[in-house]
Amino acid sequence: MARIRLGMVGGGNDAFIGGVHRIAARIDDRFELVAGALSSTPEKSAASAEALGIERSYGSFAEMAEAEAARDDGIEAVAIVTPNHVHFAAAQAFLAKGIHVICDKPLTSTMDDAHAMEQAVAQSDALFVLTHNYTGYPMIREAQAMVASGQLGDIRIVQAEYPQDWLTSPMENEGLKQAEWRTDPARSGAGGSVGDIGTHAHNLACFVTGLSVQSLAADLQSWGAGRTLDDNAHVMLRFNGGARGMLWSSQVAPGNENALKLRVYGEKGGLEWAQEDPNYLWFTPHGEPKRVITRNGAGASDASTSVSRIPGGHPEGYLEGFATIYNEAADAIRAVQGGAAREAAMGNLPGIDAGMAGMRFINACVTCSAGNAAWTDL
Amino acid sequence: MARIRLGMVGGGNDAFIGGVHRIAARIDDRFELVAGALSSTPEKSAASAEALGIERSYGSFAEMAEAEAARDDGIEAVAIVTPNHVHFAAAQAFLAKGIHVICDKPLTSTMDDAHAMEQAVAQSDALFVLTHNYTGYPMIREAQAMVASGQLGDIRIVQAEYPQDWLTSPMENEGLKQAEWRTDPARSGAGGSVGDIGTHAHNLACFVTGLSVQSLAADLQSWGAGRTLDDNAHVMLRFNGGARGMLWSSQVAPGNENALKLRVYGEKGGLEWAQEDPNYLWFTPHGEPKRVITRNGAGASDASTSVSRIPGGHPEGYLEGFATIYNEAADAIRAVQGGAAREAAMGNLPGIDAGMAGMRFINACVTCSAGNAAWTDL
Amino acid sequence: MARIRLGMVGGGNDAFIGGVHRIAARIDDRFELVAGALSSTPEKSAASAEALGIERSYGSFAEMAEAEAARDDGIEAVAIVTPNHVHFAAAQAFLAKGIHVICDKPLTSTMDDAHAMEQAVAQSDALFVLTHNYTGYPMIREAQAMVASGQLGDIRIVQAEYPQDWLTSPMENEGLKQAEWRTDPARSGAGGSVGDIGTHAHNLACFVTGLSVQSLAADLQSWGAGRTLDDNAHVMLRFNGGARGMLWSSQVAPGNENALKLRVYGEKGGLEWAQEDPNYLWFTPHGEPKRVITRNGAGASDASTSVSRIPGGHPEGYLEGFATIYNEAADAIRAVQGGAAREAAMGNLPGIDAGMAGMRFINACVTCSAGNAAWTDL
Amino acid sequence: MARIRLGMVGGGNDAFIGGVHRIAARIDDRFELVAGALSSTPEKSAASAEALGIERSYGSFAEMAEAEAARDDGIEAVAIVTPNHVHFAAAQAFLAKGIHVICDKPLTSTMDDAHAMEQAVAQSDALFVLTHNYTGYPMIREAQAMVASGQLGDIRIVQAEYPQDWLTSPMENEGLKQAEWRTDPARSGAGGSVGDIGTHAHNLACFVTGLSVQSLAADLQSWGAGRTLDDNAHVMLRFNGGARGMLWSSQVAPGNENALKLRVYGEKGGLEWAQEDPNYLWFTPHGEPKRVITRNGAGASDASTSVSRIPGGHPEGYLEGFATIYNEAADAIRAVQGGAAREAAMGNLPGIDAGMAGMRFINACVTCSAGNAAWTDL
Repeated sequence: MARIRLGMVGGGNDAFIGGVHRIAARIDDRFELVAGALSSTPEKSAASAEALGIERSYGSFAEMAEAEAARDDGIEAVAIVTPNHVHFAAAQAFLAKGIHVICDKPLTSTMDDAHAMEQAVAQSDALFVLTHNYTGYPMIREAQAMVASGQLGDIRIVQAEYPQDWLTSPMENEGLKQAEWRTDPARSGAGGSVGDIGTHAHNLACFVTGLSVQSLAADLQSWGAGRTLDDNAHVMLRFNGGARGMLWSSQVAPGNENALKLRVYGEKGGLEWAQEDPNYLWFTPHGEPKRVITRNGAGASDASTSVSRIPGGHPEGYLEGFATIYNEAADAIRAVQGGAAREAAMGNLPGIDAGMAGMRFINACVTCSAGNAAWTDL
Repeated sequence: MARIRLGMVGGGNDAFIGGVHRIAARIDDRFELVAGALSSTPEKSAASAEALGIERSYGSFAEMAEAEAARDDGIEAVAIVTPNHVHFAAAQAFLAKGIHVICDKPLTSTMDDAHAMEQAVAQSDALFVLTHNYTGYPMIREAQAMVASGQLGDIRIVQAEYPQDWLTSPMENEGLKQAEWRTDPARSGAGGSVGDIGTHAHNLACFVTGLSVQSLAADLQSWGAGRTLDDNAHVMLRFNGGARGMLWSSQVAPGNENALKLRVYGEKGGLEWAQEDPNYLWFTPHGEPKRVITRNGAGASDASTSVSRIPGGHPEGYLEGFATIYNEAADAIRAVQGGAAREAAMGNLPGIDAGMAGMRFINACVTCSAGNAAWTDL
Repeated sequence: MARIRLGMVGGGNDAFIGGVHRIAARIDDRFELVAGALSSTPEKSAASAEALGIERSYGSFAEMAEAEAARDDGIEAVAIVTPNHVHFAAAQAFLAKGIHVICDKPLTSTMDDAHAMEQAVAQSDALFVLTHNYTGYPMIREAQAMVASGQLGDIRIVQAEYPQDWLTSPMENEGLKQAEWRTDPARSGAGGSVGDIGTHAHNLACFVTGLSVQSLAADLQSWGAGRTLDDNAHVMLRFNGGARGMLWSSQVAPGNENALKLRVYGEKGGLEWAQEDPNYLWFTPHGEPKRVITRNGAGASDASTSVSRIPGGHPEGYLEGFATIYNEAADAIRAVQGGAAREAAMGNLPGIDAGMAGMRFINACVTCSAGNAAWTDL
Repeated sequence: MARIRLGMVGGGNDAFIGGVHRIAARIDDRFELVAGALSSTPEKSAASAEALGIERSYGSFAEMAEAEAARDDGIEAVAIVTPNHVHFAAAQAFLAKGIHVICDKPLTSTMDDAHAMEQAVAQSDALFVLTHNYTGYPMIREAQAMVASGQLGDIRIVQAEYPQDWLTSPMENEGLKQAEWRTDPARSGAGGSVGDIGTHAHNLACFVTGLSVQSLAADLQSWGAGRTLDDNAHVMLRFNGGARGMLWSSQVAPGNENALKLRVYGEKGGLEWAQEDPNYLWFTPHGEPKRVITRNGAGASDASTSVSRIPGGHPEGYLEGFATIYNEAADAIRAVQGGAAREAAMGNLPGIDAGMAGMRFINACVTCSAGNAAWTDL
């Protein structure tokens, strides 16, 4: 099957997530990266494009959207991998041209932008995929399927956490680009840790349980000297249907790299999963011994084996989980190109709804924490 | 050195914690159990005493306090291992006679009793030790010493959790005695999981960090059919000095036996400890690799080696940690008998203050959760 | 039930294993330590006895055997906790008097002594218990029962290892008593690591599988400067019935404290157990997910729950496993005192046969390694 | 930089390792797969090539070598991913044309072929890379660098193991292609588990320590009904310079997927690494606490960060380690194309020497085991 022609906005030299998107797009050989507006100036963009062997470089995303839409062999999809505050404008430009959008999370930096994004997606026929990449991990798919099939019974408790330690010291004052924009409200939005990684934990909790958060109580803190955005957040959750949860996001917890962890407990059993050791899913049917379901190993169902590449015991990692999002985006693109309905084509892929839920989550956390921590609706 | 003559209230057949106290008292050979009021009736008490080879059996704690105080070779200390609602009356009887009290936690079942207990302790010369046994684990002592010596810098974040799964199903309706009284407000008090095990997590967090909880926001739930006390509790914490924390206690989380876990993060490093694998303390000086300090192994200081019995790599467990409380209680008793001041003699031992803090914690959790989760002072 | 009157040979100040035996004997309250010949001189012995509150101190084991046998309230059993080269003479003295012997391992320091010990046991009516204490761990009992009941099918492969690191540097030259006698052939015997800890691994492999080693190929080394006994041993094993195995013992493997580990694989499943985390037994029925059976938790059978003291999730450790040997020795002693046959009374307890198997194992390792590693019968 | 034009021999539908090579070649975007002789017949090859979007399909590797060598835009390198018995003939065809060879392991199926391969490599100017892919794991590079820099002191002990469980039952009789050829001496060679995975463990031990095996004692077994090749192997090792080791390979150990594990102990410290959790390297400087060095995390040096793609805590896996071999092969190819000497260009890459060492290892294992396990030189 022919590869999908892909463009990229952002992801020039020095960027982290752009390179991840490029590898992810390459792993399953479904995309060909042919165009880019990779940096903030035409010169830098061109230099990055040349270094990466990308044919067509543009000075801006607007120019790229215009030009590519006009070509017979123009890009079919675009990956947006800029800081958060650019997501909306860039996405809008491509959605307006019917070019499918694969956008990094969180959705936008402001609620206003988020609502505008929602509208832009609604008015376009193109797909909008939000790379909540952790949903691509095979054992997360297994967990989702197990909950859906009732193996845990009604869900009672959800424990989600995503601690990191890289901002324990004020790295944003020491020239680390990744730290600079992530601690800058103008570029990140109202949420610090809660926006950057708390949204991942929130998304994963909802993805696996099939539930949504209805209200929350939050306590956000900024520990780094001079930092205005939160770098540590404590949140209590109430889900539709009655389940309760806790969520912790932190960038100042020494000894934690990307220790995203999800635990789900129902009346009939419990599940535990950790991103840093992602090929294992721990399952306890209540009253029986805990067991470990391994990716492509004993106990794994089609929900996870269908998104695995290699035998059990040979670990797949972050890039493969990310690649699954790209692989399924490719499926979805080919499906809508073949006439399928957009909703149906999206399947399990996180899109605008997951993005809006994330934005409401950030917003409620910030609002609630500024008050007295009383329950706040999303 | 002569053994301390010990009596016991509660702990007859069918009881769990009484047997634990007896082994704990025996391990370091500092006590001799010579008297008991082990059950609710004289007959049952006598039968239990005989089975255990205890010389003197009494029909009630009141009778025992009276009789033992009158003997030259009467008990020097008493262990109170009844359900919570009996703690105060029993303790009061012995404190009034100048007999040292080693009491199971939580302090009492009601705040009224707690205040009365505080007064009874104040009016007695005898020691009052509360068996927050987890503080006896060597690596908890190591953690406490590391925080105290500034190895973590100022404490920022505390994550404490104590999940269990034994009440996932309503065992209290199936004749399990342990479940019956623990889910009964009249015998347990206002807190369910939060009183039974949340207090342990709370106590441990305070013990290790040297901080106290000033206010909290809580969400308590009862999942077991017909259960009135909480069996799952989510709590956000604010400590004096500014540190923040989260605490989770649960009796309905399948796959968790006694998964008490404490994580403490400061500006200079992080510590992690898990009760189910207690001989290890994970320490990350910020920016350096995580390392594992083992009991009586490399990196362990006198804070932990002084309360260890056997070489590193030969695991000590729950009973040895509990025994350390008894061992230190023996030291304290001999010290006050030798003229030492009560405060000084207590040293690191949890006593009435820890007990009162626990009661305020339970009370605030229940009050806050019944409201709208807004911050509630202790 | 009345406590068994116990004496002790060895175990004075500075000794490690004597204190362990004393705690182990105390935990389940079945023994009362009333007599001792604790050190090499009457003065030291008396000082140790007084410090420990032991009533009767003797200048030598011979004197103690004589005197205690003559008393109406003399000791019923004796614990021998000396260096290896004293085991035989001491045991013989008490066996000859009909006093039950609980002896530390390995059996003796020489094959000649071992054969003499075998004879001494045969000629006595008293019990001879060898404290292969690791067999007292509940999950080892569970493993033994699972193999016996056929849950693994025919056993194919056994992997046993016991690495330590405490002799990485030549501690025996730095005044460490434990290191001195263990590296001295005159006191330890022909085996260094292979005698001290390799025998534990060998014993555990046989205990769990019910098999015995028929032949082996071994490579023993001495890494510590000036050391004559092995401090690292590699062994390939052939069991009766056809199973094969490997065994590694080491005292020079930095990062290992007492990392005894046993893995058993049969045609139908596999088991894994680690002494440093002893409350867990990992079981994989072939083709199914690996599961963890926990002590007194889900999946545990009577084989392990019957030798457990406290609920699952509250770790028992080395001392409790050791105590189970003492507890079962107490049962056996009372049984033979009540007329039971010695064999039947021993049950699961390691005795002279396990001791002889261990001696043949050491001997074969040393012999084979001195040759060209060709298969050597035990 | 332009991509290297790559061909592939083997790797058609149903093959496992071919797909792995293709992803590995793609991840770092250094290769373009343009030609293939993917299957045993021209028709099957063409079908596979079309499915994979490969431009040029050939009926045989001989035809492909001939044709590609004649093209201006012919392949620069070829990946050989067939069963072992085809390795030599295929490699020879391309080496003779000066086309660089990237060959799966083990080198060949017979010692005769191995010697011929050695000659063919010697007579060619082209590079010969053997995909001992586990050497591409970042933390294996870190371990290698730590040993080389003396952080462990002189190496004393090496423990290597690679247990699997997929052949516990005789899958080769149930139509599993992977099992069929791997248990067939005609296609696999003289070694079963010892050739398929034991060589990986052997290679890794040598790669990390910089040592080579001089002699060994082995016990090979076949447990699967009707199986002639070994499916379980126990080996004792003696390295040049005096270090000793043990190696275990198994395909019949239930509960093990690809549990390759390497432990190295020197006079100054120990290292432990496990393939199933490859982002962590456990290091114990003797006398200090064990610490965990994480990929791209604290404590990681350039040796591992230079072959890492994403931040610590986001796991890289098997495919990324494999990709590093391809990435470095690309560097080496470009280097020799630019005039560099072949030896220098190879750097850390496993090549013909590692392949020959592996063949001698297999050969010695088989020979020794058929005898009486006495030490056998390689």
